[in-house]
Amino acid sequence: MRSVDRPGGRVRVLGIDPGSLATGYGVVCVERSMLRRIAGGTIRAKGDTLADRLAYLQRELARAIAEHSPETAALESIFSAKNARSALVLGHARGVALAACGIAGLGPAEYTPQQVKAAVTGHGRADKAQVMLMVQRLLGLVAPPPSDEADALAVAICHGMSVRVRSAQRIAHGLERAP
Amino acid sequence: MRSVDRPGGRVRVLGIDPGSLATGYGVVCVERSMLRRIAGGTIRAKGDTLADRLAYLQRELARAIAEHSPETAALESIFSAKNARSALVLGHARGVALAACGIAGLGPAEYTPQQVKAAVTGHGRADKAQVMLMVQRLLGLVAPPPSDEADALAVAICHGMSVRVRSAQRIAHGLERAP
Repeated sequence: MRSVDRPGGRVRVLGIDPGSLATGYGVVCVERSMLRRIAGGTIRAKGDTLADRLAYLQRELARAIAEHSPETAALESIFSAKNARSALVLGHARGVALAACGIAGLGPAEYTPQQVKAAVTGHGRADKAQVMLMVQRLLGLVAPPPSDEADALAVAICHGMSVRVRSAQRIAHGLERAP
Repeated sequence: MRSVDRPGGRVRVLGIDPGSLATGYGVVCVERSMLRRIAGGTIRAKGDTLADRLAYLQRELARAIAEHSPETAALESIFSAKNARSALVLGHARGVALAACGIAGLGPAEYTPQQVKAAVTGHGRADKAQVMLMVQRLLGLVAPPPSDEADALAVAICHGMSVRVRSAQRIAHGLERAP
């Protein structure tokens, strides 16, 4: 987390939205009040067996991390699932995403869905369309990103804002120098 | 799965028993009616964050696979969990174990706990102590292995027996030559 320690500096944030069929990822650059999309996409499950599909997800996330060099990462925390079966299936993809971050030295932060929605739209009960629209606006995109990528960009924005707020607080308390 | 295709040949089977705190693994060599423990151990969670612990698990499993060169692998399938929360936590470790197998080209087979117990003890409702005792006997060990390793060795034995039975069936049907 190099730039996180450089107050007011640029920071590249990776957001991941893991899923068994499709995993969204997005890299956002946060600099003062500026937010910019660096990269993003959807990794669709590929392979004959579950192990092959998880290995593919691991490799694609490692590739995205190597290509875009994020300095910090974030995922949504999960507190509920429809049932134990769907929690196990989601857990597989989530475990691989967490391990990919850990291997790259990115100990990802976790935010509740409400925190992500509140950071992006201003209220924690926003619907999916509102989140997508605000992701588009905040990043100045010409069109809303695909759903899984939008969710990943939203958690990256949430983490980026949180890092910026913590940095501003440290500056206000004289613990850091302003940029 | 090289040796699986060599009828009657030796086959090295990796069994994994993934868990959030401890993951057991065991490598068993199956040759005709012989079963032999090649390696086994318990990977205990290590690291400050969940991502670090899962990255550590991934690296240790990759190391064990590289060191002992199994040709096929197996895990217990999970159909139930206490609740969605524990299923998610188990799913994390299980996803990492599956990805480690997939990356190594080992598409692991899955067996129900009942299948594993039946293969090792002769009945699907055996208790943990019976499974440990039979793992010790089948592998000719001087003492029962630690619990997580024993579970991993049990699933490796189950898969090894299954591979052997399928090979014998193919020989009986003239689809393979006897060794």
